[in-house]
Amino acid sequence: MIRLGVDLGGTGIKVGLVENGRILKKGSCPTGAADGAEAVIDRIAALCREVAGEKLKTLSSAGIGTPGVLSADGGEVILAANLNFVHTPLAAELSRRLGFPVRAENDANCAALAESKFGAAAGCRNVVLVTLGTGVGGGVIVGGEILSGAHCSAGELGHMTLAMDGERCTCGRRGCLEAYASATALVRDTRRAMEAHPDSALWRAAGGSEELPREELPREELLRRVNGRTAFLAAREGDAAASAVVSAYIHALAEGIANLVNLFRPEKVLLGGGISHEGDPLLLPLEEEVRALAYGGPIGIPIPPIRRATLGNDAGIIGAALL
Amino acid sequence: MIRLGVDLGGTGIKVGLVENGRILKKGSCPTGAADGAEAVIDRIAALCREVAGEKLKTLSSAGIGTPGVLSADGGEVILAANLNFVHTPLAAELSRRLGFPVRAENDANCAALAESKFGAAAGCRNVVLVTLGTGVGGGVIVGGEILSGAHCSAGELGHMTLAMDGERCTCGRRGCLEAYASATALVRDTRRAMEAHPDSALWRAAGGSEELPREELPREELLRRVNGRTAFLAAREGDAAASAVVSAYIHALAEGIANLVNLFRPEKVLLGGGISHEGDPLLLPLEEEVRALAYGGPIGIPIPPIRRATLGNDAGIIGAALL
Repeated sequence: MIRLGVDLGGTGIKVGLVENGRILKKGSCPTGAADGAEAVIDRIAALCREVAGEKLKTLSSAGIGTPGVLSADGGEVILAANLNFVHTPLAAELSRRLGFPVRAENDANCAALAESKFGAAAGCRNVVLVTLGTGVGGGVIVGGEILSGAHCSAGELGHMTLAMDGERCTCGRRGCLEAYASATALVRDTRRAMEAHPDSALWRAAGGSEELPREELPREELLRRVNGRTAFLAAREGDAAASAVVSAYIHALAEGIANLVNLFRPEKVLLGGGISHEGDPLLLPLEEEVRALAYGGPIGIPIPPIRRATLGNDAGIIGAALL
Repeated sequence: MIRLGVDLGGTGIKVGLVENGRILKKGSCPTGAADGAEAVIDRIAALCREVAGEKLKTLSSAGIGTPGVLSADGGEVILAANLNFVHTPLAAELSRRLGFPVRAENDANCAALAESKFGAAAGCRNVVLVTLGTGVGGGVIVGGEILSGAHCSAGELGHMTLAMDGERCTCGRRGCLEAYASATALVRDTRRAMEAHPDSALWRAAGGSEELPREELPREELLRRVNGRTAFLAAREGDAAASAVVSAYIHALAEGIANLVNLFRPEKVLLGGGISHEGDPLLLPLEEEVRALAYGGPIGIPIPPIRRATLGNDAGIIGAALL
């Protein structure tokens, strides 16, 4: 069956016509969140019509993935800060414009559903997806379905404390997984290591592939250029300070994933988001550490493999079309 | 329908005939784990026959709750250290002896199921039960069913790290919820506070209600007598060292429960086990702290109430009968 999937983000809207996990046609436009919820929903509806084209009248429903906290039935986006949505009846308003039912879910939950049906965990009924981006998000699939919870969306994996009274998190709490395993946290820790180690290869790695030698770039510019790859790049060159940053990053992520394994016992754990592209230098030590930490791992109880998500930026559209 | 529920523990076996959450008849006997798995299962079967009596031939199935890690289908107890069970096909062996199908589940999961059907969370479809005993265990109900996971039982709530590289846990890891919120952890921290504060009322509270005045009991004896109530008792008298122990205990438990709220978004969180009997002096500050920590709490997203489990020692039998 052909269905319409919408991936609503803070900066862009993506819409796809999806059949059996394959995107037949897709389109995108800027979100323009500053214009208010009504304008954003108008834009989504227009893009849906454009992408669906002739097929629009054959469609019977659509799904939309959105950032933020949703009510349990998906009827309301209770809060999505970067969309300026507060108690926004997104699904109903989009449904009114399109003329057929629309279901809404948290975007990370959509991505997890897509990966469990057509991606890196195809065929698995119990899956945890952890996305390592600006923040740490994720979704949990239990028995083939999104773990939704009561009242509002479950699966806020990033806001699990690993270090009581540790680093401050965006959610107001301290020591969350997000405060250690997001790209933002990795950048913070890379900069700290640079300040502490003026001779570290981190400074060169931060310079990037520019022609200008490191010496020509001012210190502030190098610190500004640090991103989630910097520490991994310098660690690959054998730099001790960079290796320490990477090890601490992997350790925190392993503690978080071991918690999720103990709680959910999924068949697979998937990593998505920018940092997941580091591949084996991230995945191999991570898997080894999770095996040592997770309950029963040391005595041979099966620990789920940790793999990269494979649907990338399409996961949100494909998952939304499955709602 | 009348069903048989078995609650297998490290020291005792309990069996009940259960109808609609009511125990019609029950019996118990020692486990005698040292005699080996075969002998234990023989004992369970004999007790089942005794409790069921005339009803035995009208029964079509039974359920059993057991400590330890089970395979996903409940067919095998992979490991239950205090029962000396290793890869023990408990359900099949009991079924062979009784002549009808038997389903097995982790005991804490059984208790959570019972509480969600007939106890403190009756009518709730999403529930987290945290048991605060010698260890910290628990069970999670998602959509009215036990969260089972793949490979083996999910819901190992006690083995969620709250403090990377913190206090050592029985599971071999550091900083688990169990290492801060179990009675064992509370006793450890109470003793530490006593050593640090020779004049604290904790010493008197540890003495208990004996006729002997505190001074007559040797220091080692007082330290030996510390239990999970000691700090709560002395805190009620306004003792500063005791209050600090209680506050730290509640803080760690609140961090753990906030994590569980963010992950599962249940309708209710229940507390069971010995420490839960402290009641309001535990529950009220705990609920307040969880509301401040859980994602969205400070901006008014509903945070589940925290209540005491009500089925007590019967929860295991009642839950097993529901399997």
